[in-house]
Amino acid sequence: MTEDGFARSTIAVVGLGLMGGSLALALKAAGAVSKIVGIDRDGPTLEAARARGAVDETSGELKAVRGASIVVLATPVRTILQQLQALGEIASDGALILDLGSTKQPVVRAMDQLPTRLNAVGGHPMCGKEASGFRVADPTLFQNKPFLLTPTARSTDEALTAAMTLARLTGAQPLVLDAARHDRIVAAVSHLPFVVAANLVRTVEEFADGDERVWQVASSGFRDTSRLAASDAEMMLDILLTNGENMADLMRRYSRYFAELADLIYDEAEDALRERLERAARRRSQWHGE
Amino acid sequence: MTEDGFARSTIAVVGLGLMGGSLALALKAAGAVSKIVGIDRDGPTLEAARARGAVDETSGELKAVRGASIVVLATPVRTILQQLQALGEIASDGALILDLGSTKQPVVRAMDQLPTRLNAVGGHPMCGKEASGFRVADPTLFQNKPFLLTPTARSTDEALTAAMTLARLTGAQPLVLDAARHDRIVAAVSHLPFVVAANLVRTVEEFADGDERVWQVASSGFRDTSRLAASDAEMMLDILLTNGENMADLMRRYSRYFAELADLIYDEAEDALRERLERAARRRSQWHGE
Repeated sequence: MTEDGFARSTIAVVGLGLMGGSLALALKAAGAVSKIVGIDRDGPTLEAARARGAVDETSGELKAVRGASIVVLATPVRTILQQLQALGEIASDGALILDLGSTKQPVVRAMDQLPTRLNAVGGHPMCGKEASGFRVADPTLFQNKPFLLTPTARSTDEALTAAMTLARLTGAQPLVLDAARHDRIVAAVSHLPFVVAANLVRTVEEFADGDERVWQVASSGFRDTSRLAASDAEMMLDILLTNGENMADLMRRYSRYFAELADLIYDEAEDALRERLERAARRRSQWHGE
Repeated sequence: MTEDGFARSTIAVVGLGLMGGSLALALKAAGAVSKIVGIDRDGPTLEAARARGAVDETSGELKAVRGASIVVLATPVRTILQQLQALGEIASDGALILDLGSTKQPVVRAMDQLPTRLNAVGGHPMCGKEASGFRVADPTLFQNKPFLLTPTARSTDEALTAAMTLARLTGAQPLVLDAARHDRIVAAVSHLPFVVAANLVRTVEEFADGDERVWQVASSGFRDTSRLAASDAEMMLDILLTNGENMADLMRRYSRYFAELADLIYDEAEDALRERLERAARRRSQWHGE
């Protein structure tokens, strides 16, 4: 589908939290579609989305996707899996189904079970905030961020092109990745950092044991390293449980290197420790060319 | 010493990197002292500091502290320990020695070995940048940040008051802490976050194994969680090796909790995992009232 095609189409966005709400706002800001139907279980969220002009019509029912030529699922991963099953019955012929979930293998497998009258592509915009919900939705959220797209075994070129167009219309940079490779990579650069941050907060909390001075002394270093710990727990739970194998692999690796580092410090192995720290500093500085 | 006392005094700043350079610039910006002598091994750094008006006189020799009523040691911790020994001979009678090192027990112990004609207080401004050196020095670095002060067994009230005045003149908020408690707290909120970040970078690097796509997909979550890994390796090496006992204790604790988290994910122990993630999210959000 071309940008012209989008301009005449109806999009249904299912789940108007941070991601779905921001997507609707971004498409509206770009004047990219003729109508957006917002679907959410939460009445006040639907009212807020309509009041802010993010959506033209609202519904609390998934069946309101009927008539839409594009359906975007912006719910937690395990909810997406359930909704895909239901969409097989209710989405209109020829509709493109796209999701915004953070793990893609289970989603892409479920998409391959859809009836052939529907098209589907997995999606994952690499952006977020630690706050969640429509109230923090932001039309510029996707701007210049990678928008990963994972084709299913059955995705047509046309469906993939339409998904790329939609990603570009939000201001993001589409990047096509195989779902298995996607899940391995995001486990490393997104889910592992979350786990590391959450574990840091727990360690400091248990260590502090009620001493408020600890939190008073904590400054920008702790702030940044722990930021992801404030992510929506329900969303992260879904992500971790649907990417368990990669997480197990990565967490074992992280633990092993962490134990090595602890030994070097304990043994005062100055040269080996210096080499290790310099290497990490170099790698981080090389990467951070933003 | 009052602010009036400062206005007539000469301060020697030893080490004109990020911290020492920023301190000199902050004191100059506040019009707080009559003369600043900058001491550094590196000729171009001395030139740059003089050119930017951070210091009035420069020297490559520690003995240039003679005549200063306040000596600030802004070098790595183990260098501070060596310089304190030398200062016993060369600092002027009645001078106040203050350092800016990140671990305080070894410093405070060395300060207690100084001749009684000298006063000393440990200092640790809780601020920084991942870049280092005079070129990134910034007169606003200390603004509204905690400036921890650790008295030695022999610190007089007058010396502590003078150190608090100096901290306030830089724009920081002085906070007096016992050195042992200081070292435990900063191990948790500052040194552990560094180790966690450095280990994250190593894990991602080894996992990526040359696949550049990994670094391309990495976004703001990885950026913040890994930021501290780019800290100056030599400085961090000094900190870790002079705070080894606290680090060993904390790293053991972090490893244990991390293994528990990995088990919960592996076992798909949904309720226990949710409870854990919600607790960390709540704690992080409570703290981050900035």
